[in-house]
Amino acid sequence: MLTRKEFEAAQKCAAAMIRESGIHITDAEAERIEVADFGLSRLPQEGGQILTLVATDRMAAKIVVLFPGQTLPEHWHPPVGDDPGKEETIRVVCGTMRLYLPGEDNMREGTIPKGKQDSYTVRYEVLMRPGDQITLQPGTKHWFQAGKEGVVAYSFSTVARDVLDGFTDPDIERVTKIVDC
Amino acid sequence: MLTRKEFEAAQKCAAAMIRESGIHITDAEAERIEVADFGLSRLPQEGGQILTLVATDRMAAKIVVLFPGQTLPEHWHPPVGDDPGKEETIRVVCGTMRLYLPGEDNMREGTIPKGKQDSYTVRYEVLMRPGDQITLQPGTKHWFQAGKEGVVAYSFSTVARDVLDGFTDPDIERVTKIVDC
Repeated sequence: MLTRKEFEAAQKCAAAMIRESGIHITDAEAERIEVADFGLSRLPQEGGQILTLVATDRMAAKIVVLFPGQTLPEHWHPPVGDDPGKEETIRVVCGTMRLYLPGEDNMREGTIPKGKQDSYTVRYEVLMRPGDQITLQPGTKHWFQAGKEGVVAYSFSTVARDVLDGFTDPDIERVTKIVDC
Repeated sequence: MLTRKEFEAAQKCAAAMIRESGIHITDAEAERIEVADFGLSRLPQEGGQILTLVATDRMAAKIVVLFPGQTLPEHWHPPVGDDPGKEETIRVVCGTMRLYLPGEDNMREGTIPKGKQDSYTVRYEVLMRPGDQITLQPGTKHWFQAGKEGVVAYSFSTVARDVLDGFTDPDIERVTKIVDC
């Protein structure tokens, strides 16, 4: 749950970071940046800001913004019907990102959000800087954490069906509630 | 056919335009920018510069650069086996682009390359500026022409199989020959 104020502040900040990174977006796009708290109600710690540039039933291109130190929770893109699941290429535009994948635990720079040891199970750390990119095969568990300047990254993918993504944290709800109080 | 010198100059200029547009690319990426003259040997008039950021067997993300007034010849993305053909979203990053599609001839800003009336058959003109984007369904004939500042654009798409693209101009060969003389 986010208050309307939190939502608007996050959206404004994300739009500014996208523009500062050199990506031209329209005002209409800035106003439809998704702010996702994953139902956890602690956006600065766990959440993400996502602008979908295009999403068809075959592919998607998005911009993902994480605020300084913000963590986008561990998830994966499962198969859906005939589709083997979303294949996703992450490319950092600005700032630094820690990407975590299955493999040996070599975590050095990142931190597990407090009290969430069980919800972040893959800990092979990849440090990504502007121009770095990596393609994730469907079903691969992964999570992201921004460095201290935050991060703006592209996500180029096959068809996205966000509401069907799997999350390790059982408390997560993919739909963010915004309240006016 | 391009001389090595023409090729290198075009690649350098395209890399500079990409970087000037605010997109961070690595030196390795700059060196693998494709310069396509479509076998016509008149790159400044008909051709394109393309950097493939990612291409898998399911999707692709590319940067297309056209020099001032340069025209990327009319083509379409046909079905291949089970694939209905490439669905492509074009998004302008910097500069202006004229996109031509099937429909009523409303061409005003653009010009047909000299002596090529028969090779540019679709003439519904769409003027595109930074932040504008359009999604083209597979099989749609289209061509692009840069405005006087040139253009840098994204192409987000399903799987790309460039060598299987159809071209209206029968003189076109998709593979560019580079000669050292």
